[in-house]
Amino acid sequence: MTGTELSTQDGREQLVLDRIDRVRRAPARVRGERVTLAHGSGGKATHTLIEAIFLEAFRNPLLEPLDDAAQLRLDGARLALTTDSFVVSPLFFPGGNIGDLAVNGTVNDLAVSGATPKYLTASFILEEGFEVADLRRVVESMRNAARVAGVDVVTGDTKVVQRGKADGCYINTAGIGVVSHPGELGAATVRDGDAVLVSGPIGEHGVTIMLARGELEIDAELTSDTAAVHGLVAGLLAAAPGVRMLRDATRGGVATVLNEVAAAANAAVVVDEDAVPVRTEVRGACELLGIDPLYVACEGRIMAVVDGAQADAALAAMRGHRLGEGAAVIGRVRAEPPGMVLLNTAFGGTRVVDLLVGDPLPRIC
Amino acid sequence: MTGTELSTQDGREQLVLDRIDRVRRAPARVRGERVTLAHGSGGKATHTLIEAIFLEAFRNPLLEPLDDAAQLRLDGARLALTTDSFVVSPLFFPGGNIGDLAVNGTVNDLAVSGATPKYLTASFILEEGFEVADLRRVVESMRNAARVAGVDVVTGDTKVVQRGKADGCYINTAGIGVVSHPGELGAATVRDGDAVLVSGPIGEHGVTIMLARGELEIDAELTSDTAAVHGLVAGLLAAAPGVRMLRDATRGGVATVLNEVAAAANAAVVVDEDAVPVRTEVRGACELLGIDPLYVACEGRIMAVVDGAQADAALAAMRGHRLGEGAAVIGRVRAEPPGMVLLNTAFGGTRVVDLLVGDPLPRIC
Repeated sequence: MTGTELSTQDGREQLVLDRIDRVRRAPARVRGERVTLAHGSGGKATHTLIEAIFLEAFRNPLLEPLDDAAQLRLDGARLALTTDSFVVSPLFFPGGNIGDLAVNGTVNDLAVSGATPKYLTASFILEEGFEVADLRRVVESMRNAARVAGVDVVTGDTKVVQRGKADGCYINTAGIGVVSHPGELGAATVRDGDAVLVSGPIGEHGVTIMLARGELEIDAELTSDTAAVHGLVAGLLAAAPGVRMLRDATRGGVATVLNEVAAAANAAVVVDEDAVPVRTEVRGACELLGIDPLYVACEGRIMAVVDGAQADAALAAMRGHRLGEGAAVIGRVRAEPPGMVLLNTAFGGTRVVDLLVGDPLPRIC
Repeated sequence: MTGTELSTQDGREQLVLDRIDRVRRAPARVRGERVTLAHGSGGKATHTLIEAIFLEAFRNPLLEPLDDAAQLRLDGARLALTTDSFVVSPLFFPGGNIGDLAVNGTVNDLAVSGATPKYLTASFILEEGFEVADLRRVVESMRNAARVAGVDVVTGDTKVVQRGKADGCYINTAGIGVVSHPGELGAATVRDGDAVLVSGPIGEHGVTIMLARGELEIDAELTSDTAAVHGLVAGLLAAAPGVRMLRDATRGGVATVLNEVAAAANAAVVVDEDAVPVRTEVRGACELLGIDPLYVACEGRIMAVVDGAQADAALAAMRGHRLGEGAAVIGRVRAEPPGMVLLNTAFGGTRVVDLLVGDPLPRIC
């Protein structure tokens, strides 16, 4: 699932170059004739589906960066627009429910695009028979999350489908914000020597959801990290004008973001496994589940690529915010080999961290 | 389903006043403990759900009008923002599929709010096992509809849920547009003597979907009226500056819009049944189905309330557009009795046209 283990020296360069060649030659093609859970993982299959079908049909300069939010100019205003549908199962889990997830997820997509989140839409697909009391709880969580994030829900929609045609409740939120950051954020600004930071321990949301399903005999004191990161981002941007790009590490986890950075910047990202903050409970659960925490979703953690000279300032800014207390510098950008994410493992080896293949944790958001 | 038959004279006034009193006293309360299909009908149960749960939690001045789109001021820009989820069954039907419906529906919500539609988001919930070829057809229809409407899809999302947790494909689109109409549109501007127009024959989309399910032994040459009405609206607004408000008559049909107008304007709307354009095939199917065409959804028809003195100009403007050839003036606004929709029937009687109760046509959009 996590790529190819390589020796630190012999043959590594050739393996890497072969792989790059293979990736570059391959056109985006959806394999198979039917949609699979892997197409929703945020990993390789999701990327292929998006490129082969959605980008192919809708292609335009605003869509093309495939960022968390589109950057628009409308009637003189500088805006960011984003959307996410939430299908998490179970709907209620330690630390939150689908409601605050739906607000925080969209707020965060706006925040990491350098925008101040302003307004949300909320659209519900309800299954016939869903309990009104549960809907109330979900909506109250949305209201509370919206208050914390300083956004208003200004328009919405409700559909009801027959029993067996949904799973209680699905929510879509779209969000609009004002881009106030004066600089340009994006992979195009990433340079050799930049530092890569994560704002706190990873994988807590994904593991919490997995355990909340109750299918595993694992007992861990874990709660989802779902939170709105707009304040954390604002503090970071103010303290470190050399921030190149920001992402929230949701579906596909930190590994997916690292790969997106490497691909978009056409650079390498080299990560120190020891530097990546992972709580003991998450590490333990991941070992039992046979998954790598690098691929497990967070819902309140951001990743930042920052001018290497400003790494300390950025780290201090993150740690100065309640949501960034566990922040760490986890790696560096290097020119070579372009498009690759390399992990210096705790055992002194190096391995390629690839995009996620398959979907070990479906419907975590 | 369609309200109370009243004699034209005796006792009518008292009945009407009793009813107004009852409606005014009743707080919005969701009856029962579970969501039913009626909550998705666009009728009475939908309104109650929205007011008791969503409006109650999210209350703010921008949401409160509960219009098709919220009117925003952002960074100096005058914008409209809207969202809709589409769960139509079947996904493909004569005249369209869920894809063009998802584009046209959101484009139309922007258009009737006086905005020029600009950008859309597209978010997909796919069921595991959904055919990639069908997804391609849907997405191509979205692309074509977006071209016709002059909008770009600039951001999106894809989720996949397990088999049996959706119905092939659900789509959410949110849309943003620039409000260019100089005047104010809305129920607050409606006055005694205004004319009520509809842009063409009603109920074609809803009846087409019902027949496409193949559960009924009715054969009719009908196609959905799904279309983007932005051009029709622009022509109308240019020709008749006295347009008070616009709506697209989707879920709940013309009757629901009339009731929304009457309630929001605190006025009566009196409609001539004979003047309402209904194709013979729709009328015939509705008779067999036991439903009133006034409650059946359109997806490419608008309703306009217009200064009575400009009714002819508005009608001519509508008829001058391909999508408005079958336009008609169907009624008038009167001061009394406030909040009521009255229908002068073809038989010379008058009856109250109420909000839809129950949902005879679930999942038509």
